[in-house]
Amino acid sequence: MTHPVPTSAAGTAAALARQYGPYLQADWGYANHWYPGVFSREVAAGGVVGITIGGHDIAVTRDQSGKAWAISDRCVHRGVKMSRKPMCFKDKTVTCWYHGFTYSAETGNLDTIVGSPTDKLIGNARVRTYPTEEFAGIIWVFVGDEDYSPVPPIVTDLPMKVTDRENPIAHLRDPDVVADGIRREVYGNWRLAAENGLDPGHILIHRDNQLVVALDYALPLGLKALKDDAVELIDIEDGPKGIMERFDLQEMFEPVFFNPELGVKARGSRYDPFFRVSAWLPAGLMVESWPEPGYGQYEFYVPIDDHHHMYWEIMVGRATTEEQKNEFQFKFDHFFKPLGLLDFNDNDIMAREATEEFYAKRDGWRGEVLGDMDFSIVAWRKQAAKFGRGFFESPNADED
Amino acid sequence: MTHPVPTSAAGTAAALARQYGPYLQADWGYANHWYPGVFSREVAAGGVVGITIGGHDIAVTRDQSGKAWAISDRCVHRGVKMSRKPMCFKDKTVTCWYHGFTYSAETGNLDTIVGSPTDKLIGNARVRTYPTEEFAGIIWVFVGDEDYSPVPPIVTDLPMKVTDRENPIAHLRDPDVVADGIRREVYGNWRLAAENGLDPGHILIHRDNQLVVALDYALPLGLKALKDDAVELIDIEDGPKGIMERFDLQEMFEPVFFNPELGVKARGSRYDPFFRVSAWLPAGLMVESWPEPGYGQYEFYVPIDDHHHMYWEIMVGRATTEEQKNEFQFKFDHFFKPLGLLDFNDNDIMAREATEEFYAKRDGWRGEVLGDMDFSIVAWRKQAAKFGRGFFESPNADED
Amino acid sequence: MTHPVPTSAAGTAAALARQYGPYLQADWGYANHWYPGVFSREVAAGGVVGITIGGHDIAVTRDQSGKAWAISDRCVHRGVKMSRKPMCFKDKTVTCWYHGFTYSAETGNLDTIVGSPTDKLIGNARVRTYPTEEFAGIIWVFVGDEDYSPVPPIVTDLPMKVTDRENPIAHLRDPDVVADGIRREVYGNWRLAAENGLDPGHILIHRDNQLVVALDYALPLGLKALKDDAVELIDIEDGPKGIMERFDLQEMFEPVFFNPELGVKARGSRYDPFFRVSAWLPAGLMVESWPEPGYGQYEFYVPIDDHHHMYWEIMVGRATTEEQKNEFQFKFDHFFKPLGLLDFNDNDIMAREATEEFYAKRDGWRGEVLGDMDFSIVAWRKQAAKFGRGFFESPNADED
Repeated sequence: MTHPVPTSAAGTAAALARQYGPYLQADWGYANHWYPGVFSREVAAGGVVGITIGGHDIAVTRDQSGKAWAISDRCVHRGVKMSRKPMCFKDKTVTCWYHGFTYSAETGNLDTIVGSPTDKLIGNARVRTYPTEEFAGIIWVFVGDEDYSPVPPIVTDLPMKVTDRENPIAHLRDPDVVADGIRREVYGNWRLAAENGLDPGHILIHRDNQLVVALDYALPLGLKALKDDAVELIDIEDGPKGIMERFDLQEMFEPVFFNPELGVKARGSRYDPFFRVSAWLPAGLMVESWPEPGYGQYEFYVPIDDHHHMYWEIMVGRATTEEQKNEFQFKFDHFFKPLGLLDFNDNDIMAREATEEFYAKRDGWRGEVLGDMDFSIVAWRKQAAKFGRGFFESPNADED
Repeated sequence: MTHPVPTSAAGTAAALARQYGPYLQADWGYANHWYPGVFSREVAAGGVVGITIGGHDIAVTRDQSGKAWAISDRCVHRGVKMSRKPMCFKDKTVTCWYHGFTYSAETGNLDTIVGSPTDKLIGNARVRTYPTEEFAGIIWVFVGDEDYSPVPPIVTDLPMKVTDRENPIAHLRDPDVVADGIRREVYGNWRLAAENGLDPGHILIHRDNQLVVALDYALPLGLKALKDDAVELIDIEDGPKGIMERFDLQEMFEPVFFNPELGVKARGSRYDPFFRVSAWLPAGLMVESWPEPGYGQYEFYVPIDDHHHMYWEIMVGRATTEEQKNEFQFKFDHFFKPLGLLDFNDNDIMAREATEEFYAKRDGWRGEVLGDMDFSIVAWRKQAAKFGRGFFESPNADED
Repeated sequence: MTHPVPTSAAGTAAALARQYGPYLQADWGYANHWYPGVFSREVAAGGVVGITIGGHDIAVTRDQSGKAWAISDRCVHRGVKMSRKPMCFKDKTVTCWYHGFTYSAETGNLDTIVGSPTDKLIGNARVRTYPTEEFAGIIWVFVGDEDYSPVPPIVTDLPMKVTDRENPIAHLRDPDVVADGIRREVYGNWRLAAENGLDPGHILIHRDNQLVVALDYALPLGLKALKDDAVELIDIEDGPKGIMERFDLQEMFEPVFFNPELGVKARGSRYDPFFRVSAWLPAGLMVESWPEPGYGQYEFYVPIDDHHHMYWEIMVGRATTEEQKNEFQFKFDHFFKPLGLLDFNDNDIMAREATEEFYAKRDGWRGEVLGDMDFSIVAWRKQAAKFGRGFFESPNADED
């Protein structure tokens, strides 16, 4: 099959590709960044949960003092995942269920082998470790080259702290943040997921979503950038890198409510450009004041392999009292999660899966034809290409 | 594993292959031919149904006047299938559900983008179109090179009109034809399906079928060709190309009712060589007077990819009055479909799937050993190799 | 991902590999050996059961006199598996259900074609045959090169006859043997299965198994070899080749009941090193006096392809009277099978599947890091490399 390839507003796919070449290489994701690993609630003391980030199989555990640790989830002996059957005989260790290889959660050193306490391997073998941090109900993991140093502060890999608005979205490290969310494995390259999230042109898929209809939101048909800097390139020294779509500035963006050719009008009566959207290295999204002021949504598209990502959807609010925390949780359980994270975002998942088919099999990175509304995506690609700290590579022997 | 490769009646597989080389290349099917696309009843006005023929993803739609159109089912923008979520805001257009790219069903031109009505791509991008015809309850599509010209009349790609017999099978374009059928995706290369259909040696698999037993048909064990021209090569100028097995001529074919080595006899008492079988470019079959005089069955083995085909099974009769039409439909629903298209032909599907395994994995096209009854298959292969108008090719980037 | 590769007790994986190179090539299994094919009870007279051993598709049938035969399960004509729909019109023949090709079960010759009794192929085509033997409720098949000659006596490919102990495990050819078992297809290379079976270091996975807990067995945490010849290399002239772990000799093996580093003790109070384990060419295991004296377990890890094996689990005892046979069967049905072959061995299956992922995708044969307890595995690899009679190769056209 051949597609005509016109010169789009942004130039041909081939011409564009030269501007963000490294992004096209990032099929397994950007290495040497912090990623959300597991929800805190998933790992009890002595528990082991296995995750995969950019091809790295990682076992996350927690010691009796409550501190989280992350080590390679592949036992050096015969390569099984230790998380397959969690086993912990001693604090701050992980024992492999198969042959009893027991590693320090802190150093990764092989401390003993259950049935071979005098084994010559003891003290001479280890699995690698991964730095962790824990806040906002999430255990975060720094994943990349083992010798990457120094490990950058995690704040460089989180969406930035918003300070320019009233009632700003809580930053994930704010002391009064309350957060809850879900994560699920989705078919589709992480970049298609990230691009779907920040894409101002994709909102047609949400036109009939329950949340939008129930709240009578006048979701525009599209958003038209009025100036070249409508998409702000953000590069904070020792801080986050990303792009922000200034939907909040009327001189920058014009919502499109009517298509005269088709006679199609946006539905709903309530419009307020509160839901500013921004995308952040390595794979994050921030939607402010969504689905209503005082709240916000973070998303992370954590690469698993070149065709799957872990989709993180996190709602945040602010609470200092028990009552406020309960109110947030109640809204999360009965509004944000069912209408937002599930029904609304299920449409995004469908879209990513549909796009993956084209990009994975039909050379879509070269065959795509971008339009005016893709300026945001192009800006994101360039920013990611510029600030990504390295590439994950396939751990599989028979792939490149 | 090695198989002994004796010289068969028709010569070795390698020697034969030289006689129909292009047929061996047609793993994705023959391009530049008409194929059945969807049943008419599947596409309402404003509806969109997605099909795949020879690797071409095609969206079939219908305008308010009732006319059917076919365009590429891959949006130029980011390659999703538009049929995944049909969307139509204006007559004779198809809108992509993801970003609102809206194409003319007639020209394929990008007429507008829902949320970006002033986009520079509008008027500068298009999807390709496919010619359609609609009759006998089917929307037919011409699939192949976009610049193939002129498009041949569809009659050249249908089984021929029978004129040499009493009570002939209705031609698909006859004014008094009544037709109904089913289509289903089947695992197996389209050629193995076509060969199974025309194969006079395969009827052993139908020996215990409900239709055969209930009607007491004396299905022969095999059919022996008596002359070299028992399989008639048909090449009608400006008309169909194919082969016809002259089961109706006693001087040409002798049914085999007994195998002395095994002491096996054909079952049943009713035999009449009414069910003449013929195969037609690009991928059709005609079984006359089946399962009883006055009716007939057409089959099409429409290639989807190199390992799957859409199996079309169509029963036809003749009717001019409402009563005759109802009688046909009643027989279709309670006899032809359950006993013929399902129970009887399910055995053929099983056989194709079993054969595919050998041809797909074990180099069966070179390793097969043909016998006397395969003369029909060899004749078909040569005819198809001679008259196929081109080859479909894999649309996938990583395949050859 | 990179793993540190220390020098293990046995040397690095690379250094070791040089010592048993041919073993690393045996991904499809060792050819020219006897393997269990099907249980006798699975094949009635005139029946056909299809199996695959080392890529060889084999149809096992039985004639009216009760003798078992094995021929290629791929009809020479168009390569379908004849076992897909068993058909037998005459004693000691197998007829292909598709086109009636009928082969002698004894010679493999094409004796006739049901619907084409005068076909020129008859007498000129054949499928290959495989030698069979039947005892202990199993039909055994010799699989390998068609011209391999002479076919070695089957006793060379069975675990050896035990003579050095009281109440020895019944040999599979003993006149008083009673045997029953199960077979199931398991994901994982046959070598990982064999190594799991003989591995003295893997018993941690059985620590909480119902059989062990119910019988209060003090399963050691591990077993420490005290001498270089703790693993006896067995090479019987004109007899079995294999390795035996001399758990029965206290001067050879010391069970480990305590790990001081972790403070872990073996559970249970009953320990007796009765369950001596040995591994045998081509892919067999013998566990003596298991799960109690007077009984024993044989296992076979019959390669299907490079990623699957047929897992055979056979319990044996001795019986001469009907009452003794009934007693064995009762224990088999209500103890050996549910607690041993299923619950206990299910853990081994889980372990193999977990290991396969690493070896199949991550180049585990080179990346593994062996410890002290792997001396048995290394000994097995060398013995297998030395005595394997040939390699199976992939029958698939597109693989190497």
